[in-house]
Amino acid sequence: MGRNDPYIDLGTDARTAPTSRMWEAMQAVALNATPFKGQEAVEALLARACELTGQAAALLLPSCTMANLIAMMAHADRGDQVILEESSHIAWSEGWGMASIAGIYPKLLKGRRGAIDLEEILSAVEASVFSHRPRTKLLCLENTHNAGGGAVLPQAYAAEVCAAMKEREIYVHLDGARIFNAAVALDLPVRQMTEMYDSVTINLNKGLCALEGALLCGSAAMIRKASQLARALGGDSQHKAEIIAAAGLIGLNEMVDDIAKDHRRAYLFASAVQRIPGIGVELQRVQTNIVMVDVSGTGLAAKEVLQRLKIRGVASYLYSDAVLRFVFHREINDEDALRASRLLGEAIG
Amino acid sequence: MGRNDPYIDLGTDARTAPTSRMWEAMQAVALNATPFKGQEAVEALLARACELTGQAAALLLPSCTMANLIAMMAHADRGDQVILEESSHIAWSEGWGMASIAGIYPKLLKGRRGAIDLEEILSAVEASVFSHRPRTKLLCLENTHNAGGGAVLPQAYAAEVCAAMKEREIYVHLDGARIFNAAVALDLPVRQMTEMYDSVTINLNKGLCALEGALLCGSAAMIRKASQLARALGGDSQHKAEIIAAAGLIGLNEMVDDIAKDHRRAYLFASAVQRIPGIGVELQRVQTNIVMVDVSGTGLAAKEVLQRLKIRGVASYLYSDAVLRFVFHREINDEDALRASRLLGEAIG
Amino acid sequence: MGRNDPYIDLGTDARTAPTSRMWEAMQAVALNATPFKGQEAVEALLARACELTGQAAALLLPSCTMANLIAMMAHADRGDQVILEESSHIAWSEGWGMASIAGIYPKLLKGRRGAIDLEEILSAVEASVFSHRPRTKLLCLENTHNAGGGAVLPQAYAAEVCAAMKEREIYVHLDGARIFNAAVALDLPVRQMTEMYDSVTINLNKGLCALEGALLCGSAAMIRKASQLARALGGDSQHKAEIIAAAGLIGLNEMVDDIAKDHRRAYLFASAVQRIPGIGVELQRVQTNIVMVDVSGTGLAAKEVLQRLKIRGVASYLYSDAVLRFVFHREINDEDALRASRLLGEAIG
Amino acid sequence: MGRNDPYIDLGTDARTAPTSRMWEAMQAVALNATPFKGQEAVEALLARACELTGQAAALLLPSCTMANLIAMMAHADRGDQVILEESSHIAWSEGWGMASIAGIYPKLLKGRRGAIDLEEILSAVEASVFSHRPRTKLLCLENTHNAGGGAVLPQAYAAEVCAAMKEREIYVHLDGARIFNAAVALDLPVRQMTEMYDSVTINLNKGLCALEGALLCGSAAMIRKASQLARALGGDSQHKAEIIAAAGLIGLNEMVDDIAKDHRRAYLFASAVQRIPGIGVELQRVQTNIVMVDVSGTGLAAKEVLQRLKIRGVASYLYSDAVLRFVFHREINDEDALRASRLLGEAIG
Repeated sequence: MGRNDPYIDLGTDARTAPTSRMWEAMQAVALNATPFKGQEAVEALLARACELTGQAAALLLPSCTMANLIAMMAHADRGDQVILEESSHIAWSEGWGMASIAGIYPKLLKGRRGAIDLEEILSAVEASVFSHRPRTKLLCLENTHNAGGGAVLPQAYAAEVCAAMKEREIYVHLDGARIFNAAVALDLPVRQMTEMYDSVTINLNKGLCALEGALLCGSAAMIRKASQLARALGGDSQHKAEIIAAAGLIGLNEMVDDIAKDHRRAYLFASAVQRIPGIGVELQRVQTNIVMVDVSGTGLAAKEVLQRLKIRGVASYLYSDAVLRFVFHREINDEDALRASRLLGEAIG
Repeated sequence: MGRNDPYIDLGTDARTAPTSRMWEAMQAVALNATPFKGQEAVEALLARACELTGQAAALLLPSCTMANLIAMMAHADRGDQVILEESSHIAWSEGWGMASIAGIYPKLLKGRRGAIDLEEILSAVEASVFSHRPRTKLLCLENTHNAGGGAVLPQAYAAEVCAAMKEREIYVHLDGARIFNAAVALDLPVRQMTEMYDSVTINLNKGLCALEGALLCGSAAMIRKASQLARALGGDSQHKAEIIAAAGLIGLNEMVDDIAKDHRRAYLFASAVQRIPGIGVELQRVQTNIVMVDVSGTGLAAKEVLQRLKIRGVASYLYSDAVLRFVFHREINDEDALRASRLLGEAIG
Repeated sequence: MGRNDPYIDLGTDARTAPTSRMWEAMQAVALNATPFKGQEAVEALLARACELTGQAAALLLPSCTMANLIAMMAHADRGDQVILEESSHIAWSEGWGMASIAGIYPKLLKGRRGAIDLEEILSAVEASVFSHRPRTKLLCLENTHNAGGGAVLPQAYAAEVCAAMKEREIYVHLDGARIFNAAVALDLPVRQMTEMYDSVTINLNKGLCALEGALLCGSAAMIRKASQLARALGGDSQHKAEIIAAAGLIGLNEMVDDIAKDHRRAYLFASAVQRIPGIGVELQRVQTNIVMVDVSGTGLAAKEVLQRLKIRGVASYLYSDAVLRFVFHREINDEDALRASRLLGEAIG
Repeated sequence: MGRNDPYIDLGTDARTAPTSRMWEAMQAVALNATPFKGQEAVEALLARACELTGQAAALLLPSCTMANLIAMMAHADRGDQVILEESSHIAWSEGWGMASIAGIYPKLLKGRRGAIDLEEILSAVEASVFSHRPRTKLLCLENTHNAGGGAVLPQAYAAEVCAAMKEREIYVHLDGARIFNAAVALDLPVRQMTEMYDSVTINLNKGLCALEGALLCGSAAMIRKASQLARALGGDSQHKAEIIAAAGLIGLNEMVDDIAKDHRRAYLFASAVQRIPGIGVELQRVQTNIVMVDVSGTGLAAKEVLQRLKIRGVASYLYSDAVLRFVFHREINDEDALRASRLLGEAIG
């Protein structure tokens, strides 16, 4: 099922249309759900999420932002410190609900493409020795790391950090909005990359193409607490959740393999673009479906290049004054990737 | 498009399947949305909501619970008092986010089927004279009033309360999850029943049958503030909102007329049930699509009757030890209504 | 040490001047405190408070309001329900920090002079069966009950309520701002009236006459948590706490016996006032140092009587449109009590 | 009035005993306060604070921590960003109430001894262009800057920052716990250093020696809001505030001149200590009453030196692994300063 318009949307992977099979499944469940077994489709989705992530329980929520917020509130009380990488999605794009809603103190540490040195984490944990700073209750990691250009956290690093936190009774939450991309890149089962965390957020509507929804996975006790919080936030009162769940389950079961193609196309685009004078791309950093393109060498502001691409039918995302972000997904084929690279050359020419 | 199973779902009107026209519209917008005009379907929905309610601006949110919570946070600061009817939906079914998330002090007053005496409201407003109670910043009404058995607020009452609050610079928010039912019952334009409020919540997925979503309508400044709050709560990051909006717009434009049928069937059911010995129904109170049935005269607990109905394929809702709630909607026809009344007689026999 | 002015202050017992022995103790500790043992006076006060209340640990705070707020935050998380008597001091005079600061949902129940029927408490605890109301985490009692006219909670009632809550794993906090008055009235050791609670607030500057300060007493773990909260609220950074503590310790050790005299004088006043036509006093309710006087029979508003008394040099407190509150304390002798009653007669004459 | 013990307390200037004149004033007001004019002493203090700071209104609170917290809550709503220097007292010693209690997002920027580059401030203000970060509502400065070794903010810098923020409608709050030290150091009237801020916190019990208390000064509207917040936090219910105020007023009126002596003695100590091998002191940084001493050149941990000084009767403060802080105040004379420097030499010998 292809889109009707001749544009190339590299702005985000979150606008992908649900697949035909998803539409069919949603309609079928809408007709078959009964008041007595209406939750079956939701439960099937949650069970699959637990199986995939190695977590004990799961909750379907309207968005990753809410799932991350609830995870922080379930793990940490008001006044506790939560450590975050300073360019993590929670920090720059989720409205700081962790401060305003949760009353948690966010401690931002600079990492390299999402990976904060364990020593720096431990130093932030221990900083309260000379002060009355709040105790650290939670560390959040993000994999793949959006602002890091879809960077994958090295598996050994993640395992070491989780172990060090466990030892200190500090929870670790994974914002795994794109954990399937990470799993494909490392060729590891998702479970191996998620079971060591205390909780994991998964997104259903990005690479997996479902209509909407995020899953928060964790221990049974944590998900019970999360469920109460979800009610207060207005995130659990979606009476037709089984319809959303039906598409989500297809996402989990059938869409993961296609992600490898997205990665190949991102690399194809990056390789082509890299040869354009004035354009900066670090090819070895293109690990998944995101390509960060530095246009400062062209003498043009990123904002200007964004506009010029738009005129040519290519959507991208203004990441900073100098950088545009391009994201690949199921609706972009090889030809689109190459055409986008040519149009970028044309735009800055 | 009818459901497949031979049960009668009178538990809620929130599980209705989207209509065929809704499915078509959702799929069409999914294929036609572009990164450059993707928000058009959402904007069309918001514009229609403003037109219907007489409010200046609107916001699409995942649920009425979130819309009500955000309305309270936008109108009142932490520490302010919000007056609510003690059996309003916000008070008994929305997880008390107004206290835990918003830090607002809820002042519950007893009303008659949703209508609190204006004098009692004013007395609560003025109670701070002899105390250090918080100032009253907001009053919330609910129309129709769920726990009041779908009761409609008298239009003159609502107008008088709104005027009295305006005079005192106290905001009034309407939880209008079922305001279309109220408008049909009074045979008034929705706008006439909503434009006098400072903000209004509308539900798209109950009588209107859309897949999901609630609309919060208010002034431009209030909706700007609401929009920021929505981001922090995880309620505005639904990238495929145009798909949800497409079904919602059909709900607003095409489904309102059918609501009159739901009311007629609720009355049909109530009339039949009223004749069953031991069953208490106040017929003159069946104004919309909800029927409250007191089963205490049967000598059975409501919980037991709920179970016996379930075995017979009828879903209802346990409202209290003595009362079951039955809700009518598009998927219930005359025959269903009558059959449900017969099965209730059988269940308690 | 008598005051200089010829007025009679029956407005509150919270303005009593510290005694000569307190001033001496404060100055002595100011000169003798050293950086290495400066906390000794504070620790002596806390130890004495633990001994008196039968609690394991204690914390010195600037005010009862803060002590009560911190107790609620230490026992309950945001979103939990706390049950309170509807005219308790926390409910009408402490700015609703429990909602705005703590995010707790306050459930107000009507009691008789502070004592809520156990059945009503249990019913509020169990109300969540049919709803999504928050779970009850804490019950607060107040002894003596200020708005109840200094009423003493019956010991058997308090014990029964505490036991019933313990069984249900619900904490009970005692706002014991005037617990010494209650203990004198019942002729029981304070400890017997406080050890069954999970935490107790004691006031040092009312009947006990100290300069300022309240003590929060509870388990060691609870007080550790309270101590962290106190820092965030600005309540533990009083570097010269040992000076405040020195006066407080004298209050605990030497002032309790004088309280019996305050009670006798309150009764003396009430007996005299009762005979004034138009004045309503229920003598059998004058159990401690507070007398509630209903002036509505005089045809005058309480506010007017307050003014007329003020002109005559008698301070009282406007409790409601019809009622003035008179509070007795160490600076009021028998003659003052009788003179105040005569002046009241004169004022309404 | 001298202390009795032969130790030298350089740990803090917050433990100074109130002066004889303060004790006399406190006792006098305790005897003369009447229920009808009891607030006079408090009002005199507030009026003097307004005069000194050039602010319109003031509020007496138990501590600077609470005054700073309330200032932040009065200026900023939950979810707003507040910019702070990363080693400011609010950031390292006030329990992060701004996050847990106020729900504000703290943005920490690194400054040089308290002074953050205006460009960095502006860059943080503007960072939201590419993100959904919260809007900046408030900047907090601290003068003198405690962790900067009592550093004084250059007057031109402070004026420029205040003007730049005013232009952008961002409030600026001054934590002026030691603003009198700053005024003495620059030989400027306090007013000239405070009137350009939107609010100012002043401490009464440090260099000024009063028993306790902090003043929050600001506009009339801001102080009204602050007063409501103070009630909820338990900071305005101190019934004997006039006693505290009496000492505070003497602090404001009579103690400021002595501060110059504290500065001279700090410099005397620093000059002497600087000559000790292994000891690091930057003499040109000793602007007020604080001396930061780096002991890392001695091969000893600061903690060890702290202990060795304690044995010798000198109290200091462990600022970090390498640094001890010494604070001078009214109870330290020239001889104490020199003796302390000799004992430090001995301790590391």
